[in-house]
Amino acid sequence: MALAWQIAPLDHSGSDAIQHRIDQKTKPLGALGQLEALALQIALVQQQPRLSIERPLMLVFAGDHGIADEGVSIAPSSVTQQMVLNFLTGGAAINCFCRSNHLPLKVIDAGIKYEIKPAPSALIVQRIAAGTRNFAHEPAMTLAQAEQALLLGQQLAQHEIAAGSNLLAFGEMGIGNSSSASAILAALSGAEVAQCVGKGTGISDAQLAKKIALVSQGVARLQDKSPLTLLAELGGFEIAQICGAMLATAQAKKLILVDGFIVSAAALLATHFNPNARDYMIFAHQSEEAGHQLLLRLLNANPLLDLGLRLGEGTGAALALPLIHAAVSFYNQMATFESAGVKV
Amino acid sequence: MALAWQIAPLDHSGSDAIQHRIDQKTKPLGALGQLEALALQIALVQQQPRLSIERPLMLVFAGDHGIADEGVSIAPSSVTQQMVLNFLTGGAAINCFCRSNHLPLKVIDAGIKYEIKPAPSALIVQRIAAGTRNFAHEPAMTLAQAEQALLLGQQLAQHEIAAGSNLLAFGEMGIGNSSSASAILAALSGAEVAQCVGKGTGISDAQLAKKIALVSQGVARLQDKSPLTLLAELGGFEIAQICGAMLATAQAKKLILVDGFIVSAAALLATHFNPNARDYMIFAHQSEEAGHQLLLRLLNANPLLDLGLRLGEGTGAALALPLIHAAVSFYNQMATFESAGVKV
Repeated sequence: MALAWQIAPLDHSGSDAIQHRIDQKTKPLGALGQLEALALQIALVQQQPRLSIERPLMLVFAGDHGIADEGVSIAPSSVTQQMVLNFLTGGAAINCFCRSNHLPLKVIDAGIKYEIKPAPSALIVQRIAAGTRNFAHEPAMTLAQAEQALLLGQQLAQHEIAAGSNLLAFGEMGIGNSSSASAILAALSGAEVAQCVGKGTGISDAQLAKKIALVSQGVARLQDKSPLTLLAELGGFEIAQICGAMLATAQAKKLILVDGFIVSAAALLATHFNPNARDYMIFAHQSEEAGHQLLLRLLNANPLLDLGLRLGEGTGAALALPLIHAAVSFYNQMATFESAGVKV
Repeated sequence: MALAWQIAPLDHSGSDAIQHRIDQKTKPLGALGQLEALALQIALVQQQPRLSIERPLMLVFAGDHGIADEGVSIAPSSVTQQMVLNFLTGGAAINCFCRSNHLPLKVIDAGIKYEIKPAPSALIVQRIAAGTRNFAHEPAMTLAQAEQALLLGQQLAQHEIAAGSNLLAFGEMGIGNSSSASAILAALSGAEVAQCVGKGTGISDAQLAKKIALVSQGVARLQDKSPLTLLAELGGFEIAQICGAMLATAQAKKLILVDGFIVSAAALLATHFNPNARDYMIFAHQSEEAGHQLLLRLLNANPLLDLGLRLGEGTGAALALPLIHAAVSFYNQMATFESAGVKV
């Protein structure tokens, strides 16, 4: 199987007209700052005079990581399962923020270590395996597993887009997944591993040193840096499915709302499958995780929020949604100098 | 008349219990960053186990400024009236963001130059005069006018709080009012005037130099830096009414949502009437205006958003409201490690 990721770049031929429309609104030129750039991007993606966010949806992918056995996280792999159950009963931060911002949420088991049996009906089960292998010592998954995960992510996004969504937000859960994201970042950036690894949700200095050493081992093993190989060597099942889902969303010319460090690593990987995917991405926030700033720089991203979050789950993306609605709202509804009779 | 501004400081005796409750939520310690500090502040203000934002309301005060005759703004004073009409017909950025975030909006004529006659029923008319005098050459208003403006602001806030609001957001419109806010900042901070003056919504370098010179003249005239005198000498009617409304909101132990540079200047002034007012203030955003960073530092404020906005009207405050709802939501609804059976 060879997945082809055909993605059209944005058609910029309408840029001037869109910018002119923004500039005619009753405000000084550029006075809405980042929201103007956001409205321009959405207008270029949607290519229609009236913008709309239809059936926005948060997809939270969960997966476990063999490297968690090394004790480089604040919690054991069993917490991934417990948090998935917490998502399903509505008690996690992501549930609160999704409710608060009217963003429906779906949870996907992409390969957590401890399977939930019987699977609750609300859980989307597309498990690749019971967690990855420990990428510090061996490839996290086979190439076939990586392809399967990309494909399952792609199919899910296609399904939700067919159901009417034109914006998909991505979140994740997986003990150990900041190690995997750091390794992907180090491999793709060529930066020092120490610059790509952070304290995740709050490990000690000793754990951090060990995490850097283990990530370095995994990255040092790489011979082939093609995105598929890199994903198989260092990735996680949730990262792979998110990457596949993002590529499918870009293929369909819909908006991708990127959460924090781990989801940004999946986004970076997606741009290595096809750089045009970047055009469809909105970056929700700058997290506290050490490597996130570098990651966002590689993606040429200027995130909307900077609230000192370091939780993941999609929380930053859920919090950013109202800013997207606001950008759409001013673009569609704001009066022009002429229509409002304002003479500057 | 002597207005007394009795404001109770926050009762911090429950801080440990509130922090403990936040720390028991299913997330790593501190992982929700600024939203945790926000939830703590709201819990200290509300002193109740279940937080709530009731009937949040945006109050946009408009007033004109004599200094606008000097050509230090991008638009003439007539635009204040035109923008008030734009607010009333729902076409301005603040209308879009209020609609988008379900925040009702009221517009107050605190003293615009060109009165709207007949006044539309939706406009709250509490005009002090047809704009202030030019503070570069003479006091902007009399002490009696300053007191009257504070009182009218106070009464309006009391009225809205009696009607059920426990969060008041503040916005403003007034050609020339960034000069007035800069002068207030310079007088209260003792900083160089050039550090307090910015390009407002986008003036030229030549206009900026003139604006600095004029603001310096006004500030140099001050003998008495008591807040009332300073308000009368340098202020605006909208700034004065916002200041009075903020003080009343703090008196009633309700939340104050502060917008950008001009509203922050009113907030700074309010803390000079009574420093306890600060406890009730939430700072929405860091604007692009040059002096805003200094102003926020004086207020020891860490704003929620930084989107490069330089529009005013209350737009930053309206955009920040969902983050306040999110903080309340996680505090009220998020599961604890124990309730969710999560064992880290």
